[in-house]
Amino acid sequence: MTAPVSVRGVGTSRFARQPETPPRDLAWRAVAEALADAGVTPAAVEAVYAGTVFGDPGVTTRTLQHLGITGVPVVTVENACASGTTAFHEAHVAVGEGRYETVLAFGIETMTAVFDGPIEPLLSDPEGAQGFAMPSLYGMAAHRYQHCYGVTPEQMALVAQKNRRHALGNPRAQHAGEFTVEQILDSRPISDPLTLLQCCDISDAAAAAVLGPASAAGRDGHVPVRASALASGQAWDHTSDLVWGWQLVSDTARAAFEQAGIGPEDIDVLEVHDAFTIGEIVTTEALGLCELGGGGALVESGRTSLGGAQPVNPSGGLLARGHPLGATGLGQIAEIVWQLRGMAAGRQVDGARIGVVETMGGGTAGIDGNACVVAVLEAPGGPR
Amino acid sequence: MTAPVSVRGVGTSRFARQPETPPRDLAWRAVAEALADAGVTPAAVEAVYAGTVFGDPGVTTRTLQHLGITGVPVVTVENACASGTTAFHEAHVAVGEGRYETVLAFGIETMTAVFDGPIEPLLSDPEGAQGFAMPSLYGMAAHRYQHCYGVTPEQMALVAQKNRRHALGNPRAQHAGEFTVEQILDSRPISDPLTLLQCCDISDAAAAAVLGPASAAGRDGHVPVRASALASGQAWDHTSDLVWGWQLVSDTARAAFEQAGIGPEDIDVLEVHDAFTIGEIVTTEALGLCELGGGGALVESGRTSLGGAQPVNPSGGLLARGHPLGATGLGQIAEIVWQLRGMAAGRQVDGARIGVVETMGGGTAGIDGNACVVAVLEAPGGPR
Repeated sequence: MTAPVSVRGVGTSRFARQPETPPRDLAWRAVAEALADAGVTPAAVEAVYAGTVFGDPGVTTRTLQHLGITGVPVVTVENACASGTTAFHEAHVAVGEGRYETVLAFGIETMTAVFDGPIEPLLSDPEGAQGFAMPSLYGMAAHRYQHCYGVTPEQMALVAQKNRRHALGNPRAQHAGEFTVEQILDSRPISDPLTLLQCCDISDAAAAAVLGPASAAGRDGHVPVRASALASGQAWDHTSDLVWGWQLVSDTARAAFEQAGIGPEDIDVLEVHDAFTIGEIVTTEALGLCELGGGGALVESGRTSLGGAQPVNPSGGLLARGHPLGATGLGQIAEIVWQLRGMAAGRQVDGARIGVVETMGGGTAGIDGNACVVAVLEAPGGPR
Repeated sequence: MTAPVSVRGVGTSRFARQPETPPRDLAWRAVAEALADAGVTPAAVEAVYAGTVFGDPGVTTRTLQHLGITGVPVVTVENACASGTTAFHEAHVAVGEGRYETVLAFGIETMTAVFDGPIEPLLSDPEGAQGFAMPSLYGMAAHRYQHCYGVTPEQMALVAQKNRRHALGNPRAQHAGEFTVEQILDSRPISDPLTLLQCCDISDAAAAAVLGPASAAGRDGHVPVRASALASGQAWDHTSDLVWGWQLVSDTARAAFEQAGIGPEDIDVLEVHDAFTIGEIVTTEALGLCELGGGGALVESGRTSLGGAQPVNPSGGLLARGHPLGATGLGQIAEIVWQLRGMAAGRQVDGARIGVVETMGGGTAGIDGNACVVAVLEAPGGPR
């Protein structure tokens, strides 16, 4: 990487089940907001990295055409739930290497169009075809975690309670609400021990970010990107006590933190991959916010709640803001940019200077996640 | 770009309708051959760019896991028919910028699994949903081309005759054969004026290339990449006499040729996007092999046949080698690498020193292609 990079503008659509809104309209809302925020027009965009998982071939290019973004290189990427952050990562590299001055990272997913009836198994995915879908994978990780470290059902429920409460301050969130721990544990079982309110929903949304070289620190609300790391999973070591996913998140975070020159104690605000409650518990540990096995106690302590020292998922996270696969990662980036600029009214983390985004993509029982991206962003004006 | 890049190894599966062969086996054949050709093991691969269009989410990562390629950044890209060459382009950039020493570009498509019955329209594609599929788009381009420049049905048929004949020398090709012009014109109408033998088939295949920094010129059969350019289409200027697709190919080729410091007259062998016969005619013109409107006379002259001065599609091209979307572009790259090394027994272009790959991806009536990639490769030992 030859040059520091900044996020110059971000935008998102609303996160919701909104099958009546065509992809081009979702894209328009996200991209137009991001371009306006960056102070540029579509003609300034020199290249696009777009993320989608279930989008029809060409859907990203077609939606960009309706925004007047044509002629430039467009690369659409897929990395399961980390597709949006993969688009961000590639845009970051392209600017950092000096290839472009203005790059659009863009993610879109219209899940209601794909999952509007009985779901056909992905026959190329032997585990999915046996019904071993993501809720099962996370449910079994939760069981193993309970066995190894003793997290309680109540501690897992606290993640859902916190993130759904956080989303009350986010007008674009899909599932904000105030719930008791009992309500969460008593909601419909999905994949034991995970109950309905501990699982993310499907969602339709788009999100975008405009990246460019970092200008004089902090000018114009440009948010410097201190680091971005991308990795795919290794074969999971099932003989260890590390639950599924832990090692990949930990390795990716270590690479990003080293690049950024920070430690976990320096982070003021985080958006992490809480597709299921156990996911946030494992991830906060793997990121080093607490010791191994301490993720349950961490959420119980209030440290990761708004008002605590290191709020996690102020937007509501995947559980409550929503999880529209290809758009998710850029939704996380947008939230952290707003937080670092002090623009997250209703859910602002006061004085946040260092923000982290973590997204986990896919995986099977034998492989520790298909992909993980960890990015470190800094408030305009630099770290304290 | 900071450093020259070379293709160190290539590989492909057979191109065929082969629904009985699972994606992991197709991938194994292509990737294992490419790694062996490059003289490296899976552990040497530092990053992967993978292309697929209709592949299930995660199919590329899963197939790579069966090859023992885990842990490294894997970015799966989609750019319609140009997905494989987009993966190549991104790998080329990553090596050229000094990010990695060994990058795998990989493409896979199992079209029989997607198109094994009545095809559901892509509802996000308004033109596709009206039945305005690719054969219609190319058929109408052919009509307009006939109107503007007077190409004859016989000249179009000569493209099919030539490429199907070329494929007789390619043991991995899908549709080799010797046909008369009459047989080609009398085959079943698909989208007037295009007949069955003027259209590519669906195909299942994988193809791969290993890229690394260019070593001392020509050592170890490393094939230097002189240029790679990627662009997406502009709104098609329907008031001009330039048929659909012409401008995008022309613009992309100009950028690549400038980067490579060559002109069209320097090219010894080409693999270009002949999904339909009219495609090769328009493309050879847009690449500058002849003047505007001269593509019909060009194929008639024999100049683009094996034995001519500038053979086009010695592998058989999309028409006869096969067109497995995500694998196509890397199949083209593999063919040009074999040609430049003198390894294309049965279809070798004698003394080929400069080879060009061109792939066109998608598009609609109003947009001049979703994506185009043009790459320029050079024989080990350098140009004459």
